[in-house]
Amino acid sequence: MSDVYDVIVIGAGIAGLSAAVYTSRQGLRTLVISKDIGGQLSLTDEIQNYPGFLSIGGLELVRKVEQQARTFGAELVFDEVVKLDKDSDGLFVISTASGDEYKSIAVILAFGKTPRDLGVPGEQELKGKGVSYCTICDAALYKGQDVALVSWGEPAYEAAEILMGVVNRFYWVFPGSKPVPDDEFMGMVINSGKAVLLPNHEVLEIRGKGRVESVVVRDRVSKEVKEIPVKAVFIEIGYVAKTDFVKHLVKLNEKGEIIIDEYGRTSTEGLFAAGDVCVTPYKQAIIAAAQGVIAALTAYSYVMSKKGKEARVTADWRKINIPGREEGKRKGLKISI
Amino acid sequence: MSDVYDVIVIGAGIAGLSAAVYTSRQGLRTLVISKDIGGQLSLTDEIQNYPGFLSIGGLELVRKVEQQARTFGAELVFDEVVKLDKDSDGLFVISTASGDEYKSIAVILAFGKTPRDLGVPGEQELKGKGVSYCTICDAALYKGQDVALVSWGEPAYEAAEILMGVVNRFYWVFPGSKPVPDDEFMGMVINSGKAVLLPNHEVLEIRGKGRVESVVVRDRVSKEVKEIPVKAVFIEIGYVAKTDFVKHLVKLNEKGEIIIDEYGRTSTEGLFAAGDVCVTPYKQAIIAAAQGVIAALTAYSYVMSKKGKEARVTADWRKINIPGREEGKRKGLKISI
Repeated sequence: MSDVYDVIVIGAGIAGLSAAVYTSRQGLRTLVISKDIGGQLSLTDEIQNYPGFLSIGGLELVRKVEQQARTFGAELVFDEVVKLDKDSDGLFVISTASGDEYKSIAVILAFGKTPRDLGVPGEQELKGKGVSYCTICDAALYKGQDVALVSWGEPAYEAAEILMGVVNRFYWVFPGSKPVPDDEFMGMVINSGKAVLLPNHEVLEIRGKGRVESVVVRDRVSKEVKEIPVKAVFIEIGYVAKTDFVKHLVKLNEKGEIIIDEYGRTSTEGLFAAGDVCVTPYKQAIIAAAQGVIAALTAYSYVMSKKGKEARVTADWRKINIPGREEGKRKGLKISI
Repeated sequence: MSDVYDVIVIGAGIAGLSAAVYTSRQGLRTLVISKDIGGQLSLTDEIQNYPGFLSIGGLELVRKVEQQARTFGAELVFDEVVKLDKDSDGLFVISTASGDEYKSIAVILAFGKTPRDLGVPGEQELKGKGVSYCTICDAALYKGQDVALVSWGEPAYEAAEILMGVVNRFYWVFPGSKPVPDDEFMGMVINSGKAVLLPNHEVLEIRGKGRVESVVVRDRVSKEVKEIPVKAVFIEIGYVAKTDFVKHLVKLNEKGEIIIDEYGRTSTEGLFAAGDVCVTPYKQAIIAAAQGVIAALTAYSYVMSKKGKEARVTADWRKINIPGREEGKRKGLKISI
């Protein structure tokens, strides 16, 4: 069992790292596997509403939680999880993109959401080579150039605002008559002289040898097809929970979000989830952090019960309730402040 | 309507103050009414598991959240709420112990838990005059003196440990044969020579003129009654949600905790709740903070709908979902990062 972690957390956004703070502080051998640090929060310049910080950068906040988790002994590996299963011993087996395998007693799914893609030819091949899902991250690379923006609804406000300030011209592709309902905002866009609006259009293909060179679009009404020379295509059409690799183990809602109970439990014993990958009422950093903590505390009880030990909680708070245990039966539960 | 607050938060623990951060930052006129700042958290010397802080004092953390709420314009009043009702206009009317009256469109209940009392003669009169519900706060006042401790189960560990290090002798009153199940701990207590154990005992009365002078206890088996001279009586028998004054407006569980849904809603429209006063899976600072935020965001939508305005959320996060509104219908919802 020496190669078996107590808990593996998939994802190093604020939910996953907060979970790792709790499990490692409780003395559980904890591994965090993630493609990167910070998730969506790392794209946020300034946060003013995380209780405790009047103002802090998104990445700065996540780095603090990472340091906290490492201080208590959590390990981090940068890799992509491609497969998750439970073996005949009831242990979870995780396979990664780089071919490594990890085992654990409990798993916490906290890998957040991933930008939605268009699913058109050329898109996958040119990812990071002109195809971008993060205008705020990559717009500055195309200062004074011509680019395309594929975006509508809520995410489009920010993307258009950023591009107006940076690029020479952006071709704005969207399916309806208006990309966003706010006429005042659209007036500002038109006055900027930076946008070429392509209403009722869709992207057919992204072309380029090694880098984006053009985008092929079609007018959905006239059926006219055009190829437009651009250096980049910004795709901002929301985020999805990429939960395909766990769908044999968890219940999902119609958006592909993982359904959890109030203790962070999924439908598989020992498998927990937290943060934006789950059904959550609001997408906020503080709420994701709290969900990570809830999943961690329930995972802790689970790991202890698998090891045949009593849960012995080290709390900073006056009281901890362990689910399934009555107050009068909490033998050996000691609170150290 | 000028004297009507948008939101009144009852309680200034981390749940209530986090709620006030969000409602005031969203531009709602927010008042926090509380007996004190910090609630139970203010009794915690050091917190190592609030994601974002490797180590911080409990009161220090709460003060930061208070400052954050004040920065966004939240007002604070130190007072005790004694009555809460909804008037014929659908506004909440709050009466306080000092005779003031406040009105608001929405109310967030976040007043946490209060120490359970014994309900014996002399207890109320001598509160703060030797009768204490917080050993960690008040033990130092009785250095080298004789005191009584009325405590068993989980809260008793900490109380006994503190008294051993401070007082001359403590009479430990508890109903069963052992106050706590941990024999190792009890060995340590006995070896300290500081404790006089009074198993199967109960308190009948606390006596004193202006200050505690003695405690009257009875042996539940032999029925023998004794009066023991002590300078203080420490009562540590857990916490209760003192929800009597809102029970006509909310549903309570068998412990008197307020039942909320995943959006922080109680059974009365416009009345929300958060933190330890609610049914929550775990009692942790980060979870209470998140619950405050959830209640605040739902309260915000409620206040906007009452004013006939669209909710316009200022987020630090990539996306906010407003309950009851479909993604495609979010007219005018703009995210500024």
